[in-house]
Amino acid sequence: MSVRQLINDPDDFVAEALQGLQQAHPALLRANPDPAYVVRADEGAARPKVALVSGGGSGHEPLHTGFVGEGMLDAAVPGAVFASPTAFQIRAAIGAADRGRGVLLVVKNYTGDVLNFSIAAELAREDGIEVETVLVDDDLATSSSDEGGPGRRGTAAVVAVEKICGAAAERGASLSDLALLGKRVVDSARTMALALQACTHPGQSQPSFELPADEVEFGVGIHGEHGVGRRPFGPARDLVAELTRPITAELGLGDGDRVIAIVNGLGSTHALELSVAHRELTAFLGGLGVGVARSLVGPYVTALDMRGFSVTLLRAEDDFVDLWDAPVRTPALTW
Amino acid sequence: MSVRQLINDPDDFVAEALQGLQQAHPALLRANPDPAYVVRADEGAARPKVALVSGGGSGHEPLHTGFVGEGMLDAAVPGAVFASPTAFQIRAAIGAADRGRGVLLVVKNYTGDVLNFSIAAELAREDGIEVETVLVDDDLATSSSDEGGPGRRGTAAVVAVEKICGAAAERGASLSDLALLGKRVVDSARTMALALQACTHPGQSQPSFELPADEVEFGVGIHGEHGVGRRPFGPARDLVAELTRPITAELGLGDGDRVIAIVNGLGSTHALELSVAHRELTAFLGGLGVGVARSLVGPYVTALDMRGFSVTLLRAEDDFVDLWDAPVRTPALTW
Repeated sequence: MSVRQLINDPDDFVAEALQGLQQAHPALLRANPDPAYVVRADEGAARPKVALVSGGGSGHEPLHTGFVGEGMLDAAVPGAVFASPTAFQIRAAIGAADRGRGVLLVVKNYTGDVLNFSIAAELAREDGIEVETVLVDDDLATSSSDEGGPGRRGTAAVVAVEKICGAAAERGASLSDLALLGKRVVDSARTMALALQACTHPGQSQPSFELPADEVEFGVGIHGEHGVGRRPFGPARDLVAELTRPITAELGLGDGDRVIAIVNGLGSTHALELSVAHRELTAFLGGLGVGVARSLVGPYVTALDMRGFSVTLLRAEDDFVDLWDAPVRTPALTW
Repeated sequence: MSVRQLINDPDDFVAEALQGLQQAHPALLRANPDPAYVVRADEGAARPKVALVSGGGSGHEPLHTGFVGEGMLDAAVPGAVFASPTAFQIRAAIGAADRGRGVLLVVKNYTGDVLNFSIAAELAREDGIEVETVLVDDDLATSSSDEGGPGRRGTAAVVAVEKICGAAAERGASLSDLALLGKRVVDSARTMALALQACTHPGQSQPSFELPADEVEFGVGIHGEHGVGRRPFGPARDLVAELTRPITAELGLGDGDRVIAIVNGLGSTHALELSVAHRELTAFLGGLGVGVARSLVGPYVTALDMRGFSVTLLRAEDDFVDLWDAPVRTPALTW
């Protein structure tokens, strides 16, 4: 069984998709072709406030381009599939998003992204734009005691950072307050993912790795890489429990605690499956006395067509929940 | 490469997913376990107006349960995967949704659905509830001159019917006006779908049919059945053109016409691929002088994990666009 994509030339894939995104949401955003970035184009797009800019490799859509709009991002910078955008792209997006109140960069912890966002921030500062960065490193599977290592990867908690900081920015929070808020969200959130089937790169016909029928890839990332180990395939309730247990331990969650939960589809996981996973997550947490204050269930941070899911838990601090509930209007998240 | 799902027991799949859906959206809807249906639970849920009820086999999520909420459905009735709900379920959902102003049933044209919704309508009428039905039959691949045949299948145009009639119902339209409006939407819309890979039934490990690497299944439905023929696999622009050409011909679309376009993912089609498809659709229509007034791009009417997409075009009558733009607040569609 070979895999095919709905694609023209793989080299044009991201650029063409950006055009299609803009054509589908002309009232919300504008896609700049070169350097490639997406910027808000709704009626509130010029109102003075701190601007939020994020980005990273493509293939994780709707992240980040689908989160451009009121209450979330002011600009998103897509690289090639699974590759960091350039510092030049990011600098251009900062310029397009800036409204004179400073720019908050939301960066997932990958070497290329960290480097290029940092260069872009420096270039913007030289031009007189205030810039702060929130580094998102929620992937518990990549925790390590290695002092000089790259640290934990950034995955689905980035959605919570963008939503919560985006809402605070709309309410007039300062750049320094937003940087602190983002750091608090990151420190309060952890994620674990598992794959039932690896993803296939655009133009390829076979997944990036093969899984035996009786095993799942545990602690997988969002770039088609191997996870930290294989575990037996089993019913959803066992897989969800196995994925969630280390998160609750790491966050020290227990009786009476409340969380914001993200059950994230990695690409080809059906809505029914994600609903079942959410049921099992609610049951597992309930067994610990942990309540679910808010949930987000769907494909928000994908790894191309990977079959699998991730669980992100964020401690439901009162201000987090209040900002989570604030209005948002983007292609992929609206309430 | 065998397929696995995130599932407990296949027999419990739909019931467990309904629980998970309610737990994720407690402010929007309530899932009744037995008989199974989903009903609005938001603040406006009791306001007098005509109620909209739809349903059908499961496996097409977010359709229909994800469209329960303000501006769309008042209740949705899920059957087992790819199987009609029972008349008893539908009758119960009608009762839960009814607010004394009558109930509009939105029914996709499949033999089981038509029969069971019709029995339920009769039962409700016997109990004094006014009921009208809109039959959705947009799938151009199943057009036939066979007078006694089942007629065209109902597919993604049902989203437009639910959105447009749902908005009109919120504005106070009468039951008979809604039935006429729904009929006009159906008459103005046609759909064609194509599969790059068949879907896999819950608990099974292999897709419902195999496709050779150089062919796609053309005119496919949303139940894992074969399409009307095989066509060569090719670039997205060719596949989109081939799918769209018969629709524009059937609707008589030409220079100066405008449409509402739905580019619908059938399950495992990535957001980037759907964006590329939307770009190619816009270009193809532009070549005919047809403008895209509004677009909806995403997985809205799925066929489990089928890889592929459908194109639905609806003539953009002024009242359709106005009602399309009206507020909607459901798990899967909000603006």
